[in-house]
Amino acid sequence: MAPQSKLDQVISLAKRRGFVFQAGEIYGGSRSAWDYGPLGVELKENIKREWWQSFVRGREDMVGLDSSIILPKAVWEASGHVATFTDPLVECTQCHKRHRQDHLTEAFEAKKGRQPENGMDDIVCPDCGTKGQWTEPQLFSGLMKTFLGPVDSEAGMAYMRPETAQGIFVNFNNVLTTSRKKPPFGIGQIGKAFRNEITPGNFIFRTREFEQMEIEFFVPGEDAEKWFKEWVELCWDWFIDLGINPENMRRFDVPEDERAHYSAGTIDFEYNFGFQGSKWGELMGVANRTDYDLGSHTKGSGTDLSYFNQATGERFTPYVIEPSFGLTRSMMAFLVDAFVEDEAPNAKGGVDKRTVLKLDPRLAPVKAAVLPLSRNEDLSPKAKELANTLRKHWNIEFDDAGAIGRRYRRQDEIGTPFCITVDFETLEDNAVTIRERDTMSQERVPLDQVQAYLATRLLGA
Amino acid sequence: MAPQSKLDQVISLAKRRGFVFQAGEIYGGSRSAWDYGPLGVELKENIKREWWQSFVRGREDMVGLDSSIILPKAVWEASGHVATFTDPLVECTQCHKRHRQDHLTEAFEAKKGRQPENGMDDIVCPDCGTKGQWTEPQLFSGLMKTFLGPVDSEAGMAYMRPETAQGIFVNFNNVLTTSRKKPPFGIGQIGKAFRNEITPGNFIFRTREFEQMEIEFFVPGEDAEKWFKEWVELCWDWFIDLGINPENMRRFDVPEDERAHYSAGTIDFEYNFGFQGSKWGELMGVANRTDYDLGSHTKGSGTDLSYFNQATGERFTPYVIEPSFGLTRSMMAFLVDAFVEDEAPNAKGGVDKRTVLKLDPRLAPVKAAVLPLSRNEDLSPKAKELANTLRKHWNIEFDDAGAIGRRYRRQDEIGTPFCITVDFETLEDNAVTIRERDTMSQERVPLDQVQAYLATRLLGA
Repeated sequence: MAPQSKLDQVISLAKRRGFVFQAGEIYGGSRSAWDYGPLGVELKENIKREWWQSFVRGREDMVGLDSSIILPKAVWEASGHVATFTDPLVECTQCHKRHRQDHLTEAFEAKKGRQPENGMDDIVCPDCGTKGQWTEPQLFSGLMKTFLGPVDSEAGMAYMRPETAQGIFVNFNNVLTTSRKKPPFGIGQIGKAFRNEITPGNFIFRTREFEQMEIEFFVPGEDAEKWFKEWVELCWDWFIDLGINPENMRRFDVPEDERAHYSAGTIDFEYNFGFQGSKWGELMGVANRTDYDLGSHTKGSGTDLSYFNQATGERFTPYVIEPSFGLTRSMMAFLVDAFVEDEAPNAKGGVDKRTVLKLDPRLAPVKAAVLPLSRNEDLSPKAKELANTLRKHWNIEFDDAGAIGRRYRRQDEIGTPFCITVDFETLEDNAVTIRERDTMSQERVPLDQVQAYLATRLLGA
Repeated sequence: MAPQSKLDQVISLAKRRGFVFQAGEIYGGSRSAWDYGPLGVELKENIKREWWQSFVRGREDMVGLDSSIILPKAVWEASGHVATFTDPLVECTQCHKRHRQDHLTEAFEAKKGRQPENGMDDIVCPDCGTKGQWTEPQLFSGLMKTFLGPVDSEAGMAYMRPETAQGIFVNFNNVLTTSRKKPPFGIGQIGKAFRNEITPGNFIFRTREFEQMEIEFFVPGEDAEKWFKEWVELCWDWFIDLGINPENMRRFDVPEDERAHYSAGTIDFEYNFGFQGSKWGELMGVANRTDYDLGSHTKGSGTDLSYFNQATGERFTPYVIEPSFGLTRSMMAFLVDAFVEDEAPNAKGGVDKRTVLKLDPRLAPVKAAVLPLSRNEDLSPKAKELANTLRKHWNIEFDDAGAIGRRYRRQDEIGTPFCITVDFETLEDNAVTIRERDTMSQERVPLDQVQAYLATRLLGA
């Protein structure tokens, strides 16, 4: 059996330890989405909190927003999504299954190493094996619809947002008036978005339901290029600061014909997820959306979304620089990057293999585990008391099952930065042993200083 | 003109200061949802964080989860929602508009003070005025649907969850295995839910898109009643601890015929929102869902969702106690409860009216405002520097526009607990004046102690 790839190992760990579950698994599963288990939800929340603090709360020139998922159809008509957020689909006339035309030709090229000479006539249906019996391609919308109100009619049809961005643009005037910010300033938002992907896949990488962290930064047109560069650097630094190895991340300057309809320039960050084939996948993108969005919504709604600069007496429609992060993709990158296999000394004086998630302490889902050396009527209550005290501040695990080495291994593989052992000496000296995850070094710390010890060391690099 | 009700004043403040905006406002607005502006998103996040800390992270017997909004149809068939999550609708045969039958008869009774003698024959269509021309009532589903995959067909149809709870039940085994918890234990989740309400209304109280904070607590059947009572008290205390006046909240023991299909007992908490008519509205509910849910999904999926107690050798299907909080309703209650009008001394030695949101400091969207006494080349940089330091920890405003009294008023009405004034003395003594929101008392604090001062005082009552 070939050794598992690192990505496969991470996926297996994520499922086994309760980071990520398949949505609706007991009903055969939905390929559309994933559920985040006890550890996954903590990791995801920690990423969100770091992002919000770095880019929204921590900056004078940013404010936050949380807009709704369902927005009137008119918003998506004005934004250009109804017209352009489409993929060409072909249907096999034999089995009536539909496929994305570009995916079929890509698969052909990957397999044969050349383009199909006779176009679709050369391509075999992956469902029924019939060759070249395809309908003409039809454009298929990636927007997911639903119906509001008492009748399923065109009038009640609404779209679920395919990006959080539009909720920001349509609130531009509201935010401007109530927050009294002036360009350059930005609005940040974290939330779910929905795209009817024809071929979801690669674990949590491509799903129909996903989460974004988006910033729309409004600037005068002449400063757009400067801010575009600035935001590319800020986003890059954010990932590096939280522990991503720069060798696993690269920038891709998206050529004009591959950019979204609104973009005058896009730099994607790609991460080396280790996918089969190309290995790399898009993690986030920074786009210069120009004045396209505020301009389109001004036309579409009849509400003027320009800005009047009282100092200069000039009115202008701000350009938008958009750093758009995939939250669930970021989580996947942090997991893959943190996954390490190394060795730990065992009780017999030898070494055991161990799996460690070397997550930044700020991201780690469990901040510390409290472990009584053995199940004992003196040690266990003491350890539980400590765990309950620390739990007022952090996510803490208590574990008294099995040998101490095995319990260390359990914490190592979920990335817990500190293991705190309550032993028989504790009953004498009121101190505990704190073991650090990466170095496995141990330190004796008085019980009444444990909280301060953690508070300092959980702040990150 | 009649004086505005307190509720109207809160709604007006919420819109004016950027807590809540109408979704899609520039396109005429959607009645389905609301958007949360810069202050609203911070308040809402603070409520979520307090809830998560109180009920999930802070408890040894709880873990968190974040499951997907879209779940396979089979989940909603097994849960009973497809069959029972319905309302009776009637259609006027003259104008073809549809209405909820129970709402029409309630409106008749409220107006006439009696039941309609001849049933629907007495009721006039609110749209076209025709009397008694109604179709027979038809059951209408409150579930919102969407379509996944390349064809809009029955096979690709899925529902958006009307409650977060089912995502917890279908993951029961996954969580049990990965977290190694044993009943009694619970799973908490915060997330969006969608219901196709025929008549959304009352600001953010009844919307088609809303947020819930739900706990499903799994217990042996014989302990269900005990845990039901325990959770009712825990929930009650949570609201009181965060500042809700107990006189504005009451319990309602829901009679059997008004309970949801799964419930053997429900206590609703109602809050005195001040609605027209009855004033009170449902804030949250605690339900004893028995073994209905795990039993239904065991039947529906063929996967055994019972629990085997190794200590006693017994296998049982846990009962579920469900405290289900409306997040956006909680936010509305905290706003209404915190809204106070009192008086503040003015510069002329008299008093001015002031509006204050007396929010608990843990919930306040802005923790402190830094105010240079005047726009000045010495004071402003000093104040900005302080604001930037504090911003590493909290959401901070900087405001240098207008008279200091007016700036205090602006902070009072959004509930900012502390205003920090940098004045000319600051340049001499390196200290600032900190004003407390509710008492308006002022205190001189050295610059290097401001952070510690806030850290202590922002912890709440």
